[in-house]
Amino acid sequence: MTAADMLGYAAGALTAFTFLPQVLKTWKEKSAKDVSLYMFIIAFVNEIMWLVYGVMINNWVIILTNAVMLVMSGIMIWLKMRYNHQ
Amino acid sequence: MTAADMLGYAAGALTAFTFLPQVLKTWKEKSAKDVSLYMFIIAFVNEIMWLVYGVMINNWVIILTNAVMLVMSGIMIWLKMRYNHQ
Repeated sequence: MTAADMLGYAAGALTAFTFLPQVLKTWKEKSAKDVSLYMFIIAFVNEIMWLVYGVMINNWVIILTNAVMLVMSGIMIWLKMRYNHQ
Repeated sequence: MTAADMLGYAAGALTAFTFLPQVLKTWKEKSAKDVSLYMFIIAFVNEIMWLVYGVMINNWVIILTNAVMLVMSGIMIWLKMRYNHQ
């Protein structure tokens, strides 16, 4: 495995958990007024595209990364709808 | 270009603009209390990793996508610090 490969895997692993701090914050504070619903709708649709792409080219790094992000985006859409008030 | 290639490019182009709705919303409403600072710090560091990876493997799709996201993450970190109050 080259240095580039290792950096790519590390970057991909970190990407998967980008939305986690937002999910935890919104879950804890029960307020999502300032959070953009459209950001997470775009992310959700985009993750489905990446998942299909990952399956088409049979790349498990893409599949796993985007499966995690799809779940997190879905949770954020639900939290946003639930806690959109102040 | 295969169908998988086209889907990959479309997914990448959409990914680049994931953060745009949040940037526009925060810019307009001048309130970022509910937005997670850590999400955008993770994204910022992660985009730098992806940029370096893109340069190492000489992949312009990765370079361009993550350059756009790096700028947007940077703007969001600045907006969050500026509008963290109500």
